Amino acid sequence: MNIDGKAYRTIWVAEDGWSVKVIDQTRLPHELTILTLKTADDAAHAIKSMQVRGAPLIGATAAYGVCLALRTDASDEAVDKVIAMLAAQRPTAINLRWALEEMRDTVRNIPRDKRVAAAYERAAELCDDDVKVNTRIGQHGLKPILVAAEEKAQGEAVNILTHCNAGWLACVDRGTALAPIYEAHDRGIKVHVWVDETRPRNQGASLTAYELGAHGVPHTIIVDNAGGHLMQQGLVDLCIVGTDRVTTNGDVANKIGTYLKALAAKDNGVPFYVALPHSTIDWTLASGSDIPIEERSADEVLVMTGRTRDGKIVPVEIAAPGSPARNDAFDVTPARLVTGLITERGVSAASREGLLTLYPERAGEAK
Amino acid sequence: MNIDGKAYRTIWVAEDGWSVKVIDQTRLPHELTILTLKTADDAAHAIKSMQVRGAPLIGATAAYGVCLALRTDASDEAVDKVIAMLAAQRPTAINLRWALEEMRDTVRNIPRDKRVAAAYERAAELCDDDVKVNTRIGQHGLKPILVAAEEKAQGEAVNILTHCNAGWLACVDRGTALAPIYEAHDRGIKVHVWVDETRPRNQGASLTAYELGAHGVPHTIIVDNAGGHLMQQGLVDLCIVGTDRVTTNGDVANKIGTYLKALAAKDNGVPFYVALPHSTIDWTLASGSDIPIEERSADEVLVMTGRTRDGKIVPVEIAAPGSPARNDAFDVTPARLVTGLITERGVSAASREGLLTLYPERAGEAK
Repeated sequence: MNIDGKAYRTIWVAEDGWSVKVIDQTRLPHELTILTLKTADDAAHAIKSMQVRGAPLIGATAAYGVCLALRTDASDEAVDKVIAMLAAQRPTAINLRWALEEMRDTVRNIPRDKRVAAAYERAAELCDDDVKVNTRIGQHGLKPILVAAEEKAQGEAVNILTHCNAGWLACVDRGTALAPIYEAHDRGIKVHVWVDETRPRNQGASLTAYELGAHGVPHTIIVDNAGGHLMQQGLVDLCIVGTDRVTTNGDVANKIGTYLKALAAKDNGVPFYVALPHSTIDWTLASGSDIPIEERSADEVLVMTGRTRDGKIVPVEIAAPGSPARNDAFDVTPARLVTGLITERGVSAASREGLLTLYPERAGEAK
Repeated sequence: MNIDGKAYRTIWVAEDGWSVKVIDQTRLPHELTILTLKTADDAAHAIKSMQVRGAPLIGATAAYGVCLALRTDASDEAVDKVIAMLAAQRPTAINLRWALEEMRDTVRNIPRDKRVAAAYERAAELCDDDVKVNTRIGQHGLKPILVAAEEKAQGEAVNILTHCNAGWLACVDRGTALAPIYEAHDRGIKVHVWVDETRPRNQGASLTAYELGAHGVPHTIIVDNAGGHLMQQGLVDLCIVGTDRVTTNGDVANKIGTYLKALAAKDNGVPFYVALPHSTIDWTLASGSDIPIEERSADEVLVMTGRTRDGKIVPVEIAAPGSPARNDAFDVTPARLVTGLITERGVSAASREGLLTLYPERAGEAK
């Protein structure tokens, strides 16, 4: 998407044809800093330190990390070593391991002198595939926006609420939850986005607001407490969020707080959509109660990072000293609160039947 | 309540018998600073700058502000002048104007040389009355906690979720929503409080966590997004919140985000109580949709204040530069989501009938 009128992806090969550029997301929203990755260790550091984040982007960065390693040593031993090293940076990221196995398969059975070129080609394909999938999610997700637009008076924007960041900064481009919004905006449909700040890590206020603003999409930041009130006031036409995992019955694990917004949407008759690529569906789990919820550091609740008046980016304590905090990273929104799942194949009901209509080939394995 | 084992109110007359001490709430939770008010201007500044906040405490501070003014000039003109001056500090605070009119009535028809003593006596009464009302709220609110305690295994705490700060720091002592919790704790009933941080002003993480910690009540700070998930996990036994205004039908205006927690409580079968003194009931409004909702500065969303590693208290920008924010201060929780209203006269259903059972003398004026 665009930053100040210039098209970007979150990751690309530099003009030299081999080094890899990424946007340093730890500097956002305050600074746009482009990092150059020249070694697999650079790629590992970018993943570990969350300079890159979001499942698809982590996978893409790891894939290019393999490419960078192969340039100095293309032996089988070197491939195994770099893949193990990169996989260890974010042990729970399923997408990271999937991308690394793709890279191993790509180089395994070809001569060493052809491995570097093949690896770069496959890494580029992984990136392009991500963009294609997200573009299709955007096209399918356009429909509910168009439905809402029909109810609007001439010149009035469709108001869409989103939670956390499921935008292009979490992917290679387009995003998942934000893909339909970009699709609508780029086609000239008037949209306005309510951006939940998304405590504790504030990905909404920092990343979602940044990328919408940079692309020129009208938006307003709200605290996570505000969405229900806005829905009561008729100021939200639909919600679109991303997800970390959808179970076979259509339950949705997503950033903590998603469930509360889904409840408010139901209570006020506001459609609530979840956008996802097929890789997010966990066919091995029958329902959301089977999803383990990660508990993260209390410091994310007790300390916030921001920019001081003199431009320094510093952490500040925001709570009563000595008070403990609990920090569950995700919650599960039951399928009964979800209007529809938007995938690269279309929009389905949040149910086993709905998902199998889009993915009939999964009927055998679906719990 | 106690701070490190020593009993405090939020406001009291100093040992000299005339100057007035208050806790500087703008320094909390990072520092306990006691201010001495020696003039009506000191009192006005404390109200205006939110060194004191919470409707009952603002009223009490204004009452003592009148006392301080009378010490130098007890004429009718001086009384009118100081009352007008103090009332202007927080124009929308109904309790402030009520307390000032009480003070005017107290001194109006007595000789000038008796006015100072009468004023101090009345101000002390206003404070004591607030404490009495809140103590009764605490006693009545104990019942739902005892009901929850009966379901608990030996040694297990009752888990109570609260939002914002409706504690003793907002009153003279005890608090409203926190009064039942202090009552239970002081009687040796095991309680644990989930403290919503309550963005944007973070009164939960700063003030509620501070006062619970200072009194020794076990508690844990959570982001506003987390309560629904905790209820799904069976980790919340009941909710108790305060309110800024209750309408005749039992609808509850309270800090933004209260509605979302009430929805989650309903969805998970968790009792949801609202604690209030009778002065919070607005008999002139038939329902919550008639309550105007204050929209406050976007800066409260975009900028947070906290303590840096080197101990400075500074504001930091936490959102994408240039992104706008919207900041509705309150929302309305419909009566259908409220299990009961806890007042100084008992616990009633959140309905016209329920309220009139407790306050039958209001039947004539109730909309």
